[in-house]
Amino acid sequence: MASIFTKIVNGEIPSYKVAENEEFLAFLDVFPMQKGHTLVIPKQEIDYLFDLDSETYERLWVFTKKVAHAIDKTIDCTRVGVTVLGLEVPHAHIHLVPIVTEGDLSFSNPKKKFTEEEFKNIAATISAAID
Amino acid sequence: MASIFTKIVNGEIPSYKVAENEEFLAFLDVFPMQKGHTLVIPKQEIDYLFDLDSETYERLWVFTKKVAHAIDKTIDCTRVGVTVLGLEVPHAHIHLVPIVTEGDLSFSNPKKKFTEEEFKNIAATISAAID
Repeated sequence: MASIFTKIVNGEIPSYKVAENEEFLAFLDVFPMQKGHTLVIPKQEIDYLFDLDSETYERLWVFTKKVAHAIDKTIDCTRVGVTVLGLEVPHAHIHLVPIVTEGDLSFSNPKKKFTEEEFKNIAATISAAID
Repeated sequence: MASIFTKIVNGEIPSYKVAENEEFLAFLDVFPMQKGHTLVIPKQEIDYLFDLDSETYERLWVFTKKVAHAIDKTIDCTRVGVTVLGLEVPHAHIHLVPIVTEGDLSFSNPKKKFTEEEFKNIAATISAAID
């Protein structure tokens, strides 16, 4: 069965897209730890980040850097934190979370709530800042 | 002033080394969330991961993948989680944490304790599994 992220890639489930190319997709986490919390995924459905072939893995991190810089430029934060756990969805995904303090990146934090309109605006703002 | 990690790179502060090349160093976190918790750093003292020049940044992630695979092979875990916050030490560092559940990678967890001998053995075991 296709992962939820593959369904997002295929447009079967809507998402707030931040950046996309042939291989990768970045979109807002709809259960965000912070405003601007973004997920970066390879379109290829692979469970474990470190099982990606080396070339795809490298390009994924390059793509991730571009997205992180766009978040830095547009979201009020000290920096963009990174985390990859991947136990919930069997499709590798990198969390990019704008943080001010260490505690801002924690899965146990209550999730932020935004309206559809707000999510759209956040995604559009970050997207416009991609180099 | 040199960061604590630069002092480790220069051998002024001892560390349990896992892997090293001209540009990067991996060593055990002495306040580990889990057994085998490893830090991967560029020897170049740069505060923010995403400020590394693109080539160094890519090679850092390639090096990180090798270390992660060695942890996977030698430490009892489901996978190796990744996190980068970097607010405590102004020298970019990637945490690699062997995890079984999501909660295993959390800075609020009580830190595991090991003797010097145990730390040495863990580092040597992971190090021996580096490709």
